[in-house]
Amino acid sequence: MHDDAGVRAFDRLEAAARRRRAAGLVRTLRPRPAPSAAGPEAPLDLAGNDYLGMARHPEVTAAAAAAAHTWGAGATGSRLVTGSTALHADLEAALADFCGFESALVLASGYAANLAALTALGAPGALIVSDAGNHASLIDGCRLARAEVEVVPHRDVAAFAKALDGSAGPAFAVTDSVFSVDGDAAPLGALARACRAAGAALVVDDAHGLGVLGAQGRGAPAAAGLAGAEDVVATVTLSKSLGSQGGAVLGPARVIDHLVNEARPFIFDTGLAPPAAGAALAALRLLRGDPNLAGRVRANAALLHRCLTAAGLDATRPDAAVVSVRAPSAEAAVRWAADCRAAGVLVGCFRPPSVPDGVSRLRLTARADLTAEQVEDAVRRVVRAAPAGR
Amino acid sequence: MHDDAGVRAFDRLEAAARRRRAAGLVRTLRPRPAPSAAGPEAPLDLAGNDYLGMARHPEVTAAAAAAAHTWGAGATGSRLVTGSTALHADLEAALADFCGFESALVLASGYAANLAALTALGAPGALIVSDAGNHASLIDGCRLARAEVEVVPHRDVAAFAKALDGSAGPAFAVTDSVFSVDGDAAPLGALARACRAAGAALVVDDAHGLGVLGAQGRGAPAAAGLAGAEDVVATVTLSKSLGSQGGAVLGPARVIDHLVNEARPFIFDTGLAPPAAGAALAALRLLRGDPNLAGRVRANAALLHRCLTAAGLDATRPDAAVVSVRAPSAEAAVRWAADCRAAGVLVGCFRPPSVPDGVSRLRLTARADLTAEQVEDAVRRVVRAAPAGR
Ligand SMILES: Cc1ncc(COP(=O)(O)O)c(C=O)c1O
Ligand SMILES: Cc1ncc(COP(=O)(O)O)c(C=O)c1O
Repeated sequence: MHDDAGVRAFDRLEAAARRRRAAGLVRTLRPRPAPSAAGPEAPLDLAGNDYLGMARHPEVTAAAAAAAHTWGAGATGSRLVTGSTALHADLEAALADFCGFESALVLASGYAANLAALTALGAPGALIVSDAGNHASLIDGCRLARAEVEVVPHRDVAAFAKALDGSAGPAFAVTDSVFSVDGDAAPLGALARACRAAGAALVVDDAHGLGVLGAQGRGAPAAAGLAGAEDVVATVTLSKSLGSQGGAVLGPARVIDHLVNEARPFIFDTGLAPPAAGAALAALRLLRGDPNLAGRVRANAALLHRCLTAAGLDATRPDAAVVSVRAPSAEAAVRWAADCRAAGVLVGCFRPPSVPDGVSRLRLTARADLTAEQVEDAVRRVVRAAPAGR
Repeated sequence: MHDDAGVRAFDRLEAAARRRRAAGLVRTLRPRPAPSAAGPEAPLDLAGNDYLGMARHPEVTAAAAAAAHTWGAGATGSRLVTGSTALHADLEAALADFCGFESALVLASGYAANLAALTALGAPGALIVSDAGNHASLIDGCRLARAEVEVVPHRDVAAFAKALDGSAGPAFAVTDSVFSVDGDAAPLGALARACRAAGAALVVDDAHGLGVLGAQGRGAPAAAGLAGAEDVVATVTLSKSLGSQGGAVLGPARVIDHLVNEARPFIFDTGLAPPAAGAALAALRLLRGDPNLAGRVRANAALLHRCLTAAGLDATRPDAAVVSVRAPSAEAAVRWAADCRAAGVLVGCFRPPSVPDGVSRLRLTARADLTAEQVEDAVRRVVRAAPAGR
């Protein structure tokens, strides 16, 4: 009875591992060494999403430390039991104010924020129309919601309008503001008009817009004149431009109220750890205090694109901080990224199934705290490492 | 066209809010004031899940602060891109070693750990058999997995065995080790035998077992002799006994490998923030260093139960740190919890839809750092606040 314990249940794992090896799609973790151990020649990071350099900003790390001392290392319970502190309330007020929404709700991650927003709004009888290029967390949110879901082609406003048209129940259009892999922006203004014509609401994941787009980095909804609209809900993450961890849903108070009462990934999850909340709040204050930060990251992204294109690489024109560069194959992308790393530049490597179209690419991100020389030097190294057959 | 913007999409929110008000089921956030502002008479917390008092332990908060300084406030990217640090690797090794499993993978929350484990294992063609009392995150994991899901009555080993019997594809039994609302334990040994007879694997959510059950708090799988078995996968949270935030999946290396390659809530989520990882690692070291901690929380839970029962209340016998007490109605439970708070004791109040059976109750938790006098005094206050018609 105990002889082949578990073997059958896990049989498929071996088959999947073989398929991955055969396709050159094995993923491995490569832990960063401690900064001190990395030596003087630490690699230049064009792979992370810390667009404003907040994760290591001394005021941000000091705020994380102070929050740990004042509030503890963890929230100790659900936000509805013991896990809400005045720090969470302050962060929610600051996020709502900065991004221009009536109300905000902080969750443990941006992933959880998307699951919470879509499951709470997408009750049975509702319709969710979702861009084909949306982030995995929105896709999982659609799957978890009990609504009908219709996936429409990438950035196709007419397809959104057609899908929303004539929906009998509540209807929602869902899109990333900036698509995470290629860095292209959604046509938010046109989408909002299509939603309004249909009595639908627009849900925007502004994970890659906050801190980068809009005046002072107030985000894509603000840039599109949609912040605070009564038919717009935004989600953000605290883990990219704000250099921390966590997520938030922003919107009309009645939507936030609904989430507090009905969103399972909010109700049944431990509140965001105080150090993460404190760090995000400090980063938000720095962002508000430096009106040029968001402009600097956009300028660096544009420079990155110009340099890559000038060198003959097939790079996407960035609408925010992300530039992607096509690679001839998954194997070539992996080798290219490894060669960049060997040359002192960290870049992201996106392969199936993490790409919308089966095309492997490098993903490079700009940061506000890079000099033009650093960007140009990094691109030279990336170009030198490029595969021949590109 | 813009006149009733969004109104239709959000119509149902108002109706849902009215239903909640009518049923006395409105949930509100009550942020804790800063400890200094709480004054000398801070309430006694029997509501949180910080079972070992780690969240405010000076070594734990110092470790959170140190990690922020060394590694930054956030992980800056997915664990597969820039978000893995040596600290994450250390934490994974320590968790695997302490709990007795071959391998461990750290995620941003316990919720995410459950979604990751179930979606990665529960591919189409698989069968997941799930206890009716399982936590929301396991239920959401079942919903997100593309497997067939069968829900069986609470702690009913025969029903598990029957559901698993004759499954053609990979099959998994899924259970909380300690059920979060009532604090009762799953029959892990018998479930494992049923799984083995069927060639199925057992997935155990040990959120409320780690730090409380087993020698030194090594968790429910260790207590049941199942740690490290090749057909057992455990998930844990870093947000309860370890006083931090985050989660982990523990199991055979090939399972962890599979998750690294296939689990969307791992791949497409920012890595756990270094302060949270540092705090959890420090808490784990404290737990390992004090062999009596887990015993103390169990003793306090038993005392809590004895005192409540002696006072004539209908309290569940605790298998770990959680004791629940029945209330006559949702309104009575809310009033009771509020009266406890007014009397200086924080207790949880669980009402539909957060309870498995429609019965509202108070949820009390024991902590290792409470004295017998504190427990006895707290119970006196809870009893004094109890509704008359109970
Ligand atoms: C577009 C988008 N949405 C949501 C998320 C999830 O946010 P988080 O990592 O904070 O959970 C990410 C990235 O991780 C993202 O790129
Ligand atoms: C049984 C159980 N599993 C999982 C979770 C989720 O863990 P976390 O809050 O760390 O996301 C919880 C509580 O929140 C829980 O009670």
